[in-house]
Amino acid sequence: MEETLAFAEEVHAGKPQLPLALRLIRNTGVRKRHIVQPIEKTLQHPGFEERNRVYEVESRKRCPEVVEQALANAALTARDIDAIIYVSCTGFTMPSLTAWLINAMGFRSDTRQIPIAQLGCAAGGSAINRAHDFLTAYPEGNVLIVSCELCSLCYQPTDDDIGSLLSDGLFGDAVAAAVVRGRGGTGISLERNASYLIPHTEDWISYAVRDTGFHFQLDRRVPGTMEPLAPVLRELAADHGWDIQNLDFYIIHAGGPRILDDLSRFLDVDRKMFRHSWATLTEYGNIASAVVLDALRRLFEEDTPMPEATGVIAGFGPGITAEMAVGRWKLDLPGALD
Amino acid sequence: MEETLAFAEEVHAGKPQLPLALRLIRNTGVRKRHIVQPIEKTLQHPGFEERNRVYEVESRKRCPEVVEQALANAALTARDIDAIIYVSCTGFTMPSLTAWLINAMGFRSDTRQIPIAQLGCAAGGSAINRAHDFLTAYPEGNVLIVSCELCSLCYQPTDDDIGSLLSDGLFGDAVAAAVVRGRGGTGISLERNASYLIPHTEDWISYAVRDTGFHFQLDRRVPGTMEPLAPVLRELAADHGWDIQNLDFYIIHAGGPRILDDLSRFLDVDRKMFRHSWATLTEYGNIASAVVLDALRRLFEEDTPMPEATGVIAGFGPGITAEMAVGRWKLDLPGALD
Repeated sequence: MEETLAFAEEVHAGKPQLPLALRLIRNTGVRKRHIVQPIEKTLQHPGFEERNRVYEVESRKRCPEVVEQALANAALTARDIDAIIYVSCTGFTMPSLTAWLINAMGFRSDTRQIPIAQLGCAAGGSAINRAHDFLTAYPEGNVLIVSCELCSLCYQPTDDDIGSLLSDGLFGDAVAAAVVRGRGGTGISLERNASYLIPHTEDWISYAVRDTGFHFQLDRRVPGTMEPLAPVLRELAADHGWDIQNLDFYIIHAGGPRILDDLSRFLDVDRKMFRHSWATLTEYGNIASAVVLDALRRLFEEDTPMPEATGVIAGFGPGITAEMAVGRWKLDLPGALD
Repeated sequence: MEETLAFAEEVHAGKPQLPLALRLIRNTGVRKRHIVQPIEKTLQHPGFEERNRVYEVESRKRCPEVVEQALANAALTARDIDAIIYVSCTGFTMPSLTAWLINAMGFRSDTRQIPIAQLGCAAGGSAINRAHDFLTAYPEGNVLIVSCELCSLCYQPTDDDIGSLLSDGLFGDAVAAAVVRGRGGTGISLERNASYLIPHTEDWISYAVRDTGFHFQLDRRVPGTMEPLAPVLRELAADHGWDIQNLDFYIIHAGGPRILDDLSRFLDVDRKMFRHSWATLTEYGNIASAVVLDALRRLFEEDTPMPEATGVIAGFGPGITAEMAVGRWKLDLPGALD
């Protein structure tokens, strides 16, 4: 954060937006972020082509290690995987990285490729839900989820509206992977999922696609979206016979401090119950679709929940879309999310 | 084709590639193509931002009508749809058009959004297969597939390599939609699907992403890919207890004349059995992910198959990826593709 403040002082020196930028950065609650390039390089815009080239190089360099780790955690090998869901909104390649991963890491030639580029931060929740659906159809299968979000490659030096200033202080880079097993394993047994689009908010979070690449556009109403989404989460739990207020774990998209604060307030859930999401935000920033996967990692690394503990996973992103799931902690039982 | 030849004479006048360009265009077998803008406008490059703006405007203008038609054909309304799979590789928006469609056309707020941008021409087959998987998990549901391919918006005037010259003469614009019902309806009851990636061909079909947008790159080995894919299709049929040579209908991606010629030869299937794909190619050009949907439309509009008739659907695209399905013609029975 100190570095970000210092660079903001430099970048916005003498401009009217400086005090606002500094205040927004301080209020993110982000203490540390990781970026794929040195910050001096990040702040320069070498053109969309070069940025996307860096995305391609870095995604190939950084994804294999997290994929290996996810497979090892699930006690599976590449040959056991039936589908790869690759989510990323911060670079664009065709074919998707899935083709390269299959060739480079020994996945089977008949692995299904499900690349999702347009769900932004909600794509982590979406990947979990699509994996759940796929394994409901094919219970003997296994799905690999890979999230690669190099948000710093979307930094646009010429954008100085309030949404841009805020996101410049908020987003971080991350790669993450997880395996959803059809059978066996220890983790969250996914039991139900749902999606929800807040009506008529499709331009609240969006990319302007320009010759300079993707320009992230954030409407000032976005931080207020937990008010309409809290009842949707409550209803999902209720449909499952559960009370959203009394679950054992909460894996919530750390879009920003207000998102987490508001949601715990509207759901009447203690702030501490969102500790994994707060930790992700503080230590990594908003890492887009990787947030829910990182918060899950923290759940796994903490004293893990008791068997049958109940919980919810929720990703939020453009649309405004919420991708939500409820499940139960299981030890080496079917349908676990490793 | 006459217009394309005339424009090629103009564009490549006095350049060494002219005779090759003319020969390639003549050999496509494409007699007519549709493009969203007048050809004079198509041949100019107004910048990636403006192209993508046209994509956004045109996709919103043209998709609702085909969606209405698909819903009507399936005797369903927007409220009956549980998931929208939107496939398109010729423009990029975030959020995807799914959010706008839900808001503009009265789909439910809990409709799942599955946008796929990175599977290129294989995305039509992929959409059908993901719909099949989703409905295997939720047999009471219904899935809407929308394909919007405005290939002319990827025309790059400065590219004059052989792959570009060929694709300039080959690709056409199209929008298409289909409903896959979990239960009821008349059409193809999807029974099995598979995906296949030809090893180490990930750079044979790809986009170079530049400040000027997506540059389609086609390796000269691509037309030869039916040789490795024919055995994969044969095996899919055999796994289902069928003989690929003796099916009643074939819905094959019309990537180009050689693709269709080669595949019928390698499968030892009469060329006439691919008539719907040939008709799409001749009348619309290669319309990317929309090819299989348009060939399906022709199957529905022809004297439709007898009940229990067997068939295959196959889309091919970057990766090199094949997305394949086998199914049976049903009259108002579960699992039908309308």
